[in-house]
Amino acid sequence: MKHIYTGKTKDVYEREDGNYLLKFKDDVTGENGVFDPGANTVGLTMEGAGRAGLRLTKHFFEVLKEKEIPTHYIDADIEAATMTVQPAAVFGNGLEVICRYRAVGSFLRRYGLYAQEGQPLDAFVEVTLKDDERQDPPISEDALAMLDILSHEEYKELKGLTRKIANTVKDELAKKDIDLYDIKFEFGRGKDGQILLIDEISGGNMRAYKQGEYIEPLQLEKIMLEM
Amino acid sequence: MKHIYTGKTKDVYEREDGNYLLKFKDDVTGENGVFDPGANTVGLTMEGAGRAGLRLTKHFFEVLKEKEIPTHYIDADIEAATMTVQPAAVFGNGLEVICRYRAVGSFLRRYGLYAQEGQPLDAFVEVTLKDDERQDPPISEDALAMLDILSHEEYKELKGLTRKIANTVKDELAKKDIDLYDIKFEFGRGKDGQILLIDEISGGNMRAYKQGEYIEPLQLEKIMLEM
Repeated sequence: MKHIYTGKTKDVYEREDGNYLLKFKDDVTGENGVFDPGANTVGLTMEGAGRAGLRLTKHFFEVLKEKEIPTHYIDADIEAATMTVQPAAVFGNGLEVICRYRAVGSFLRRYGLYAQEGQPLDAFVEVTLKDDERQDPPISEDALAMLDILSHEEYKELKGLTRKIANTVKDELAKKDIDLYDIKFEFGRGKDGQILLIDEISGGNMRAYKQGEYIEPLQLEKIMLEM
Repeated sequence: MKHIYTGKTKDVYEREDGNYLLKFKDDVTGENGVFDPGANTVGLTMEGAGRAGLRLTKHFFEVLKEKEIPTHYIDADIEAATMTVQPAAVFGNGLEVICRYRAVGSFLRRYGLYAQEGQPLDAFVEVTLKDDERQDPPISEDALAMLDILSHEEYKELKGLTRKIANTVKDELAKKDIDLYDIKFEFGRGKDGQILLIDEISGGNMRAYKQGEYIEPLQLEKIMLEM
């Protein structure tokens, strides 16, 4: 098994059979010790964060599998904090696709002239480039097509998939009386060119609130996974 | 005549007949004495800049009138540095619509991971919010519709008009062997709700090059208007 990439919150290994192994770490993104799902730096290390993130990811990916929504997920080993996934090529150098139900975070920082904090947004989808040096700039459908990152047809598919997956997560959270404010995903092209959800779906990917109070990722994972 | 607004590069007066008078000033946008059409501050004052900008604006608006492209233009008085225009309401608190033929400026700052400096772009259109406090953030068609700034139908019309007008300016510049790299416009809704080009089309709205050399706004206006 070959170590091929060290990410901010996980490491990636290539398996002999052509699949990949994601090793979840206890590092979470943020700044100065405060968690922020939109941050580009590791802000803090929380013991058990890797396994808790993986458990929630496993849960969501299995729900998506039942709904026949295409993802890279094959299986997960909670004890080892690893997930086995199909190979998938990211679009360009990687995109983040965000689905928003409430105006918070970077949406509010950009469009605060027109939006109130916490205002409902109708499963609004936007794409940002993964580019730490340029602070992950937002990019339009037209620019993605012009720069050969994603065709117009792929954009439509990506947007539809994003809404379906985000709505699934939102419904799962609602079962525990938790409100999803926003969530970010990564996608890739699988072997046959099909668009797959990749990466993870854990507390670190989303902002969740209960009765108007923000829930930290580890706390969210605890609530979501208690029987 | 009532003074109703003081802008960075012009002042606005309301006339008795319901039309408006734009008074062109000698201030141009930029930073630290260097012209930048994308800047939000007055960078320098150049004697004659107001009249030169108005002369070029008059020229382009009259070319657009011949092509039956809707604008707010009625007439201009070069000596007084004023232009009379129809009333038009801006979208939200104002938008800038940019058409790009080459990757320079903020496009390159955002998408430099995927674009080379000066790379040809296919009359790429993007919209930014006029919001100095938030550095004029770019905004997508979906966000414009969701925030009730512009409907999807209006966006399509705006994009089509932008390309038509930018191509007209590009063709005019090409007659003097000048290449248009990018240009920004403002639009508004006229009395009957029709989308009109508003503001001005002068050297300060565009980046123009001759044989790869950038041409300053005043120089551009001089070249364009010499017979």
